[in-house]
Amino acid sequence: MRDVAIIGVGMNKWGELWQKSLRDVFVESALLAVKDAGVDHIDSMYVGCMSSGLFVGQEHLASLLSDYLGMGPIPAARVESACASGGLAVRMGFMDVASGMSDIVLVGGVEKMTDVGGDGATFALSTAADQEYEVYHGITFPGLYALMARSHMEKYGTTRDQLAQVAVKNHENGSKNPLAQFPQKITVEQVIESIMVADPLTILDCSPITDGSACLVLCSADMAKKLSKKPPIKIIGTGNATDTIALHSRSDFTTLNATVKAAERAYKMAGVKPDDVSLAEVHDCFTIAEIIISEDLGFFKKGEGGKAVGSGITAVGGKKPINASGGLKSKGHPVGATGVAQVVEIVHQLRGEAGGRQVKNAKIGLTQNMGGSGGSAVVHIMQAM
Amino acid sequence: MRDVAIIGVGMNKWGELWQKSLRDVFVESALLAVKDAGVDHIDSMYVGCMSSGLFVGQEHLASLLSDYLGMGPIPAARVESACASGGLAVRMGFMDVASGMSDIVLVGGVEKMTDVGGDGATFALSTAADQEYEVYHGITFPGLYALMARSHMEKYGTTRDQLAQVAVKNHENGSKNPLAQFPQKITVEQVIESIMVADPLTILDCSPITDGSACLVLCSADMAKKLSKKPPIKIIGTGNATDTIALHSRSDFTTLNATVKAAERAYKMAGVKPDDVSLAEVHDCFTIAEIIISEDLGFFKKGEGGKAVGSGITAVGGKKPINASGGLKSKGHPVGATGVAQVVEIVHQLRGEAGGRQVKNAKIGLTQNMGGSGGSAVVHIMQAM
Repeated sequence: MRDVAIIGVGMNKWGELWQKSLRDVFVESALLAVKDAGVDHIDSMYVGCMSSGLFVGQEHLASLLSDYLGMGPIPAARVESACASGGLAVRMGFMDVASGMSDIVLVGGVEKMTDVGGDGATFALSTAADQEYEVYHGITFPGLYALMARSHMEKYGTTRDQLAQVAVKNHENGSKNPLAQFPQKITVEQVIESIMVADPLTILDCSPITDGSACLVLCSADMAKKLSKKPPIKIIGTGNATDTIALHSRSDFTTLNATVKAAERAYKMAGVKPDDVSLAEVHDCFTIAEIIISEDLGFFKKGEGGKAVGSGITAVGGKKPINASGGLKSKGHPVGATGVAQVVEIVHQLRGEAGGRQVKNAKIGLTQNMGGSGGSAVVHIMQAM
Repeated sequence: MRDVAIIGVGMNKWGELWQKSLRDVFVESALLAVKDAGVDHIDSMYVGCMSSGLFVGQEHLASLLSDYLGMGPIPAARVESACASGGLAVRMGFMDVASGMSDIVLVGGVEKMTDVGGDGATFALSTAADQEYEVYHGITFPGLYALMARSHMEKYGTTRDQLAQVAVKNHENGSKNPLAQFPQKITVEQVIESIMVADPLTILDCSPITDGSACLVLCSADMAKKLSKKPPIKIIGTGNATDTIALHSRSDFTTLNATVKAAERAYKMAGVKPDDVSLAEVHDCFTIAEIIISEDLGFFKKGEGGKAVGSGITAVGGKKPINASGGLKSKGHPVGATGVAQVVEIVHQLRGEAGGRQVKNAKIGLTQNMGGSGGSAVVHIMQAM
């Protein structure tokens, strides 16, 4: 297997992009990544997207996007695993280069979510849960994560304030990210007093509905040394795992088994331990998710993720910075793009070009991207070459 | 890159499976493939599916299907390229084994299309075309292929009877396939006199709406020799390509450029020529498609595909049998499953277990799977080890 490196990254300004169609939103980031890499061609492409069918009535994305990039007849594939689609696209691109099939691969993620009304978006997102045994009976994602939050609070004493502190920290970070959808700083009081969605989660505990994209250019590590003007970032570990799609099928609501397994696989492949990780971008679709994930990745003991946020350990200046980009919470969450954008942030951090949110001495970065209520997860570990 | 072989195949009876849900339809074929391979575990899974979101309100298939197979926490991904999703899943599975990431991979394709009404299915399928520049203006797939048919008739003198002969031949083959949705034999007169859909295509020129699935087990060629009781079938070539998603963007409606390019790549990798191919399964979503594809794969000169059908060359007893399985036309076309089912047929043929539709001296088999009006294509070439 060949070593694989990232030599280009691109991301557009996220938000409600009503002036732009799905294809425009994607092409913006793709061209930025190609420019950043300085390459003159692409051998193949992978696009992560959760549900362009339900959001904008468009499938066959591989054809559409290679066409609008002017890159046909390249091989191209869309990959889907709900909100983990982007991370999975990175993994497919990795495999393509590692196998020797392609030398230079474009990996992208995109979602255009604001062209349908609120009910349409809620339904489209609900298809990440078990349609027949969860969605049909009326549950939506804030409800599923509220069950996890209540369980974690009961079992480990995690507090309402600690949940809110995740949102406050991520908006603080996002205020330094010019591409974030909601760069406004917020307070614990504002989070707790905002509109209730599913007890204990208020609207400021929830990530938003977003239009956006993010892209990477991957190539073999050998080629990266010759091609890249900026420091190439090597992908040293990739892990993917699945769990039951339905929350009710699990024995414990306070741990996410797919994340545990995906992380184990990525750590093993990379030959690193949780303590070796300088910073992480994790899937904070709801505030409770970041707390549980930070434990499942082995950063903190089970039940201590809430305290870690409160003590500042996960802030940009702390020992284990999490979601320096602003996370899904502040940066936005165009579901299929999120997993790719997490890698974009790690590349900026490891290159030392993250501006006001730069983590000092960033050596090894980790991303954790997750589908549904944790039914799938993808973890990548990266290091500057 | 490691050599990759197919050691197990499975396919359920296709049709209107109203008693079964998407997950059941998939699991049936998956268990048949695992049993056929005789393996006791799977390292990872790829599922081709075009639009479970629009057909049954379910995304996050990787999690759902690994869960219902009892195979979580394996890595799993859904891949999509409209009706070429299945072929693309085979390609991803190939890459996973070739790269050395996984040893034993389950590749499946599935679609549950009959749970929505006719309008719902027509809309879901239309999302394989350009939503903003084709679908919005009212065109659907029979219309797009009718444009190709008229162009081919004008340019090359292809006749109405020749189109009908494709359907007649494929239903003749399908009558010997116990898993086919429509195993009834038909006549040229019946095709021509059936209900008009989009001139010149009548309903018997069109492939049906189908529920169904198909699965394969892949492993490294070295491992296949030890594991497999039946002759392992090696994948000696894989090619994937894209074209403009919209038909109107192309300079010629009588050739499918993605198919030409995907075939070139697969032939080059396999080191074989069109003349070396013993039999092929191709994407006859409409009768005209088989004629154009048979030319684009290099089996016949441009414009002579129609005559080839009429002369019996593409029948099971002919020199270049095409769609011995009955093709999409008679076997059915659960869009995401089709590309995998094509490979299932080639494996049966190369093993010599295709019963009444067995092609004599089948040495090298080819599959061609296509998305939309040809905006993407995947070609695989296989040979018994």
